[in-house]
Amino acid sequence: MTKEEYMNLALSVAEATIGQTSPNPSVGSVVVKNGKIIGIGSHLEPGKEHAEVHALKQAGINAEGAEIYVTLEPCSHHGKTPPCADLIIEHKLKKVYVACLDPNPAVAGRGIEKLRQAGIEVEVGLQETRAEELNRKFFHFIQSKRPYVTLKAAMTLDGKTATSTGDSQWITSSAARLDVHKQRDIHDAILVGINTVLLDNPQLTTRLPQGGKNPIRIILDTHLRITRNSNVLSNEAPTWIVCGSKADIDTFSVEYPNIRLFQLTTENIKIEDVLNLLGEQNIQSLYVEGGSTIQGAFVAKGLFNECHWYIAPKLLGGKNALTTVGGESPHWMKDAINLEIEKIENIGPDIKITARPKKEEE
Amino acid sequence: MTKEEYMNLALSVAEATIGQTSPNPSVGSVVVKNGKIIGIGSHLEPGKEHAEVHALKQAGINAEGAEIYVTLEPCSHHGKTPPCADLIIEHKLKKVYVACLDPNPAVAGRGIEKLRQAGIEVEVGLQETRAEELNRKFFHFIQSKRPYVTLKAAMTLDGKTATSTGDSQWITSSAARLDVHKQRDIHDAILVGINTVLLDNPQLTTRLPQGGKNPIRIILDTHLRITRNSNVLSNEAPTWIVCGSKADIDTFSVEYPNIRLFQLTTENIKIEDVLNLLGEQNIQSLYVEGGSTIQGAFVAKGLFNECHWYIAPKLLGGKNALTTVGGESPHWMKDAINLEIEKIENIGPDIKITARPKKEEE
Repeated sequence: MTKEEYMNLALSVAEATIGQTSPNPSVGSVVVKNGKIIGIGSHLEPGKEHAEVHALKQAGINAEGAEIYVTLEPCSHHGKTPPCADLIIEHKLKKVYVACLDPNPAVAGRGIEKLRQAGIEVEVGLQETRAEELNRKFFHFIQSKRPYVTLKAAMTLDGKTATSTGDSQWITSSAARLDVHKQRDIHDAILVGINTVLLDNPQLTTRLPQGGKNPIRIILDTHLRITRNSNVLSNEAPTWIVCGSKADIDTFSVEYPNIRLFQLTTENIKIEDVLNLLGEQNIQSLYVEGGSTIQGAFVAKGLFNECHWYIAPKLLGGKNALTTVGGESPHWMKDAINLEIEKIENIGPDIKITARPKKEEE
Repeated sequence: MTKEEYMNLALSVAEATIGQTSPNPSVGSVVVKNGKIIGIGSHLEPGKEHAEVHALKQAGINAEGAEIYVTLEPCSHHGKTPPCADLIIEHKLKKVYVACLDPNPAVAGRGIEKLRQAGIEVEVGLQETRAEELNRKFFHFIQSKRPYVTLKAAMTLDGKTATSTGDSQWITSSAARLDVHKQRDIHDAILVGINTVLLDNPQLTTRLPQGGKNPIRIILDTHLRITRNSNVLSNEAPTWIVCGSKADIDTFSVEYPNIRLFQLTTENIKIEDVLNLLGEQNIQSLYVEGGSTIQGAFVAKGLFNECHWYIAPKLLGGKNALTTVGGESPHWMKDAINLEIEKIENIGPDIKITARPKKEEE
């Protein structure tokens, strides 16, 4: 196997853990000696062993003189576990391959420096793009202090998300809806507007045959219009409600002591304030499920990192039907947000398009 | 080569002529003797030699005892050219492979009957699906007496076809627009509503680097609001205007003697009447370019056979932006028209989705 193949293996075992390590990144590690793999490990759960610890435990004393592949720079500080750089030094490895540096610019390179000072050879940048892609949500959060935002929409081929009467069940197939539950499972939080709560009364939980983790449910509800019968008030998952400065929070708090309420200082809810608030609360990834007005607010400000568009092979028609991204239209087509298509998939009879905002050319 | 491969060759040379044989179908033919191809031909131009004539001319006297592959049942009647069935009999061929029967139920099977009566073996149905697909527009026209309708839309990923101010230039890339010109080239007629003419003032001609055929421009203009400066009034291509019973056609006719005007007997324009009218005028294929209201009228009645959706990787946003299919929304999502996706293509940075109305399950 080539060194690229070893690093790809480390990346594959890291990718398999996506969604289960938050707030930590997904990391994989492979230890190789004389062309033989002597240890493989992933970080499996926040607060528990890092990938290198698992891999080196497998290698045992055999690790001396071996090479280790790590998808992210080994840590150099005492957190919930001792520094991995120290562990590598103790095990007397000969060489460390690192896919990418620590995303925090304040500490990036420190782990590598420590290893080099201990006389261990270090090579950085092997399969770097794939490694950055793997932890793009974590990297974005560390660097911006805001969650990585994924907009999700389900629409007919002509861009409608509900009929003129508000009927939207169902636009897409059960296969597409299952895919949505997989996304909920790997996000820290899910966000909808109060209109979606009042109109569709969704549960916003993760319902996968094999089980899954419920994201925190974030409801944007400027005037606290939420009603008692709302399924999102259930105890199945945490719910946070964000409201404006004029909302009557006293009555509300008494009635729902188990729901967290965040009152903003402004009368209306600004998306950037919501993202700052969620960032402070350590929400690294946010899955925005709509509806139309909410999507419009995120799109108008360009405050998203990715979008997942589920397109059902249907034509609804109707200028009075609900459009998938609402809000106010820009005056000129040139002011639309340009995207880069990442992937086009067939999911059951539907199409899923994954895209990200196009990076500005220099 | 297998018999399927010979028929596929005949189909390929037929497919290459799509758009240049209307009102005739695209037909290809291959003559084979002792495992050697001795003649290949396509019908190239309406009124000129049929595919079998070209192929048999190449084969010459060598055709005796050979096998001939034809993508469509050989004709048995005297039209602009003598019957091909007679020609095959004269050339004393041994066997005829026919992909599909004549679409006209009144004459289907007659050519084959004639061949069999002359003692020639005939096998029908080889690569039939591909052959029917090739001439689906012709078949639809022959059977329904209405043109095969293709709806074309260009939209942002969120289903918008123009901003709130009506700006739509350009949604898609030049590559996608070139693809639209290829479609114009292979359609008998192109249709838009008067709003598109007044707002965008398009030329609606075929502009391909290698040249191309201009379709007839059909304008739906209930009240004859078209203005003198409209580019569709140019002499580059024929223009037909369809108007309602209340339109003042006398003034109009004097001013534009070179434009054909069709006045309906109803005050408003009904799509089914337009399709009947175009069918009577031998328009076999119609390319509907919009705008939103026109698309809505076709979708509301389910009067289309195919749709070509060009999706630009952009999010515009705006409940007040123009939706790609307008008109009135049904009340329920279940009343949307179900489609079957035929093809998803990348065209430059854009995506093209080709779909057709889903056939009802029995």
